Amino acid sequence: MSEIPESAIQFRSDVTVELVRSSASDADVLFAARVSTLGEQSLAAASRDPAAAGAEGADELLPRDRGLINFLMRDRHGTPFEHNSMTFYVQAPIFVFREFMRHRIASYNEESGRYRELRPVFYVPAADRNLIQVGKPGAYEFLPGDDKQHQLVDQTVRAASARAFADYQEMLAAGIAREVARMVLPLNIYSSMYVTMNARSLMNFLSLRRHVDGAAFPSFPQREIEMCAEQMEAIWAGLMPLTQAAFIGHGRVAP
Amino acid sequence: MSEIPESAIQFRSDVTVELVRSSASDADVLFAARVSTLGEQSLAAASRDPAAAGAEGADELLPRDRGLINFLMRDRHGTPFEHNSMTFYVQAPIFVFREFMRHRIASYNEESGRYRELRPVFYVPAADRNLIQVGKPGAYEFLPGDDKQHQLVDQTVRAASARAFADYQEMLAAGIAREVARMVLPLNIYSSMYVTMNARSLMNFLSLRRHVDGAAFPSFPQREIEMCAEQMEAIWAGLMPLTQAAFIGHGRVAP
Amino acid sequence: MSEIPESAIQFRSDVTVELVRSSASDADVLFAARVSTLGEQSLAAASRDPAAAGAEGADELLPRDRGLINFLMRDRHGTPFEHNSMTFYVQAPIFVFREFMRHRIASYNEESGRYRELRPVFYVPAADRNLIQVGKPGAYEFLPGDDKQHQLVDQTVRAASARAFADYQEMLAAGIAREVARMVLPLNIYSSMYVTMNARSLMNFLSLRRHVDGAAFPSFPQREIEMCAEQMEAIWAGLMPLTQAAFIGHGRVAP
Amino acid sequence: MSEIPESAIQFRSDVTVELVRSSASDADVLFAARVSTLGEQSLAAASRDPAAAGAEGADELLPRDRGLINFLMRDRHGTPFEHNSMTFYVQAPIFVFREFMRHRIASYNEESGRYRELRPVFYVPAADRNLIQVGKPGAYEFLPGDDKQHQLVDQTVRAASARAFADYQEMLAAGIAREVARMVLPLNIYSSMYVTMNARSLMNFLSLRRHVDGAAFPSFPQREIEMCAEQMEAIWAGLMPLTQAAFIGHGRVAP
Repeated sequence: MSEIPESAIQFRSDVTVELVRSSASDADVLFAARVSTLGEQSLAAASRDPAAAGAEGADELLPRDRGLINFLMRDRHGTPFEHNSMTFYVQAPIFVFREFMRHRIASYNEESGRYRELRPVFYVPAADRNLIQVGKPGAYEFLPGDDKQHQLVDQTVRAASARAFADYQEMLAAGIAREVARMVLPLNIYSSMYVTMNARSLMNFLSLRRHVDGAAFPSFPQREIEMCAEQMEAIWAGLMPLTQAAFIGHGRVAP
Repeated sequence: MSEIPESAIQFRSDVTVELVRSSASDADVLFAARVSTLGEQSLAAASRDPAAAGAEGADELLPRDRGLINFLMRDRHGTPFEHNSMTFYVQAPIFVFREFMRHRIASYNEESGRYRELRPVFYVPAADRNLIQVGKPGAYEFLPGDDKQHQLVDQTVRAASARAFADYQEMLAAGIAREVARMVLPLNIYSSMYVTMNARSLMNFLSLRRHVDGAAFPSFPQREIEMCAEQMEAIWAGLMPLTQAAFIGHGRVAP
Repeated sequence: MSEIPESAIQFRSDVTVELVRSSASDADVLFAARVSTLGEQSLAAASRDPAAAGAEGADELLPRDRGLINFLMRDRHGTPFEHNSMTFYVQAPIFVFREFMRHRIASYNEESGRYRELRPVFYVPAADRNLIQVGKPGAYEFLPGDDKQHQLVDQTVRAASARAFADYQEMLAAGIAREVARMVLPLNIYSSMYVTMNARSLMNFLSLRRHVDGAAFPSFPQREIEMCAEQMEAIWAGLMPLTQAAFIGHGRVAP
Repeated sequence: MSEIPESAIQFRSDVTVELVRSSASDADVLFAARVSTLGEQSLAAASRDPAAAGAEGADELLPRDRGLINFLMRDRHGTPFEHNSMTFYVQAPIFVFREFMRHRIASYNEESGRYRELRPVFYVPAADRNLIQVGKPGAYEFLPGDDKQHQLVDQTVRAASARAFADYQEMLAAGIAREVARMVLPLNIYSSMYVTMNARSLMNFLSLRRHVDGAAFPSFPQREIEMCAEQMEAIWAGLMPLTQAAFIGHGRVAP
C-alpha cells in the first residue's frame, strides 16, 4: 500500500449549501392561486416585476396576501407553491446524498466518480455531534458520546479515510478505471451536486429532514442531512418569507 | 330559455401564451452538466450572472459549450436540462386543457368553474382550420373542408355556444351553484391557467404536441394544442437558443 | 338542426368504478417496510403467496403487523405503501375527469373523442344532489335546492345535452372530423378510462376528494368526484383493510 | 484496530434480482390502449383473467394484438405500458444503488444502515470484469486488465473491505451509533431493496442501463448496474414477451 499522509487529506465536519439560481418569491404563490378565482385578471399581478417586488420586501404584500398564503397552507392546496424554482449547489458526504436523492420530485446532477478522479475530502464528526443512539427504530434519540468515544470515532474515521484514499490512488496509478477503483472509498467522502426544487417539494424535504419541536409530524433525520436542510431553509426563508412563516405556523406540514 | 344574443359572446380562433416568469438559459445546462466532470470547479461558471450572460446572447458561449449541449441531446443525458424553469400563462379552450394536463411533469393552476362564473369566450375554428379527417387511428391526416362545411361548423358552434351560455346564465340566475350550472357548457369554452415546466419537460411536450417534418418520431397532435406548442417553442427558443437548436438537430427527441 | 329526441339519449346520475387488476395487500406494506430493519430476511415474508394470505384475510396478520402499519401511517413513512398496484375502470362525466387527471402520480388511458364517436350518455344531477352553494371560496357548503330549482336543472341539462348531441351528429353527418365536431359537447358527457395507482397515491387522492368529518385536513370536493372516491375507497378497503383502517385512524392524512 | 479475518467476510462478484410480486402481462397493454377507440367495450377484454391468459402464453394473442403493441412502441404512445406493476428484490453494492435510485419513476425501500447493523458482504470484481478505461467522458470503452492489475484490484478490495468492516465493528462495540459507525464502510458493501416499477419505467431504465449493439441511442452503463438490468429484462421478457420484443424491435427506445 502506498502511503498517503493524513495531512494530505482534507477533513471537514460541515456541509456546503449555496443558492445558484432562483425564481422564487411569495408573489409567485399569489398569482398562481388567484387564477382560480380571478382568471385572466390574475395576470396583471403576475406580470409585475418580481425583482422589484422583492426589492421592496414582503412588506409590500397586503394583509389579504398573507391571509391567502396562510389559507393555502392550512387547507393543503399545494399547487400554487410549485410555480417557482431554486437551484442549490451542495457539498456533503455520500451518505447524505444517498438520503437526499430518495426525494424524487427534484432535479439532480452530481459529480461523477466514473468521469473524474475524486478529491480527498472526507467528513469527520465534530466534537458536538451526538454519538450514542438510544430507543428503538422509528423513535431513536441521540446523545453525546464521552471523550473516549469521540476520540475513537475521530481517529478511526481519519485513519480509515486516509487508508482508503491511498488504496484508491494506488489502483488509479496502476491504470485501473476510476469506476472500479472508487469502490473502496468510504461513505464519508464528499461529493457535490446541483439540485433544483420548487417550494412545495422543498417543504416536503424540510418536513422530513429536520427535527423541529412542535412539528405536527415528528421526524428523526440523520444530523448530517439536517445540516443541509437547515441551510436550505434559511435561504428559502429569505426568498419567500411569508410562505416559510406559514409553513412553520401550520406545523411544518408540506401542503 | 333566456335569450343571450350571439353578439354578447366573444368568439376567438386563437390561443394565448405569455411567458410570466423564467429562470432559463443555455448556461444553466452547462453548469449542471459540468459538475459531473469538474465538481466544485463548475460552481464558478454557475455563479456568473445569467442575466448578464443572456444580455450578451448565445454568442458569448464557446464552441465547446455548443458541443456539450449537442452531446447531451444526442446521447439523451436528460437531467442537465432540468435546472431551469418557465412559467407560462395560457388561454385556450377546455378541450386543449384536457390534453395539456395529461403531461404530468409540470405544475398547473387553472381558473375554477367552481369558484368563479366563467366568461362567455368560446373557440370557433378559423377559416383555414382543416375540417376533414382521413386515414386511420394513429395516422390521421386532416384536410380542408369545403365552404358548406365551414359554414356549418361556424354557424353550429356559434349558436351552440350562445345557447349553452344562456342556459348557464339562467341556472345561475335561479340560484344554482356554479359547479352544477357549468356542466352544460361546451368543451370549446376558454379557460386560463399558469403552467410551469423545465426545458426537459417542455421538450417532451413539444415532441408530442407538434407535427414537424423530419422529426424522428412523428406526432399527430390536434391543431389547437399545437397552436399552444408553437408559441411555447418560440418563447423557449428565445431563452435557450442553443438548446432548442440541438433539439431540432437531433430529431426533436426529448432527452 | 337535426332533431334527436331526448329519449335517444341516456341520462345517468351515477358513476362507474370497477377494479380491473390489482396486486395489493396489507402484506405488501409489511415486507417493504421490513427490509429497512431485516434486510434479506424480509424476503421470506415477501415471497409468501399474497393470494393465499388474502384468502385467509387480515386475521392472519399478527398484532405486530397491525402495529407496524399504524406506525408507518402515523409518522408518515410513505414509501412502503407504494409497492402495490390497482387498476380501476371509471365512467364519469368529463368535468369529473378534469379534476381526476390533476392527480399526477397515476397512470391514465382515456376514451378519445378524436379516435371514436362519443356515445350519447350524459350526467344529470339526481334529486338528492345539493344545488345551492353558500359560503366563500375554500369553504363552500352545499345545500338542497327547492323543487323549482331541481326542475330547472333537470330540464335544462336534459334539453341542453340533447341539443348538443344533435349538433354533434349533424356535423359528423356532414363529414366534419370528430375532433372538431366534439367541441360543442358539454362537460356532462360521460367518458371512460383506466387509471392505475398505488395505495400511497390513492390515499392522497382520497384525502382531497372526500369530505369526511374528523379528517385532520378538511376537503371540499365536488360531489361527483367524491362519488368516484367513495367507490374506490370501498374497493381498496377490501384489498388492504389494515392499511385503510390506519388511514382513517390517523385523520385520513396520506403518508 | 480489532482484527477481523478476511475469511469472516463474504465476497461476491454478482448481484441478486428476484421477482417478488407482479401484475404484468401483454394483455394489460392492450386493454389500456383500446379504451381510446373502444371505450366501454374495452372492458370485456380487460376483465378476462390475466392469469388464465398468461397460462396460455403469448400464443393466444392475435396478430392484431402484436400489431397494436408494435404501433404503440413505434410511435411512442407510452401510457398503455404503465398499467402494470413489478416488484423486484435486489441485492447489489451501494455504488450500484446510487445509480439505480436516480431513476425517479419507481418506488424504493432499502435496508437501512441507521436501523440495522450491516452485514459483511462486499463486492469484488470477477476475473472477467474489464478494468481499463479508454476514451473520453461520454464514450468510454472498457478493456480487460492484465493479471497484475487483476491481482492488485482483488487484493486491495478484499483487504480494504475487511479493514473497513473491522473499523465499523470496533466503533459499534464501543457503543457508537450505527449511523455514525457506517460512514467508514466502502461503496462496495452490499445493500438490499425492493423496487417497484411499471413496464414503461422499466424500459426507460433498460434503455439507459444496458449497452446493446443496435440500440437507437447508445448507452455506457457501469457493468455492475448492467448486471441488474440484464436480470430484470430477462424476468420482464417472461412476463410481457410481446412488449419486450417490440422494445427490441424499435431500437430499445422507451416509449
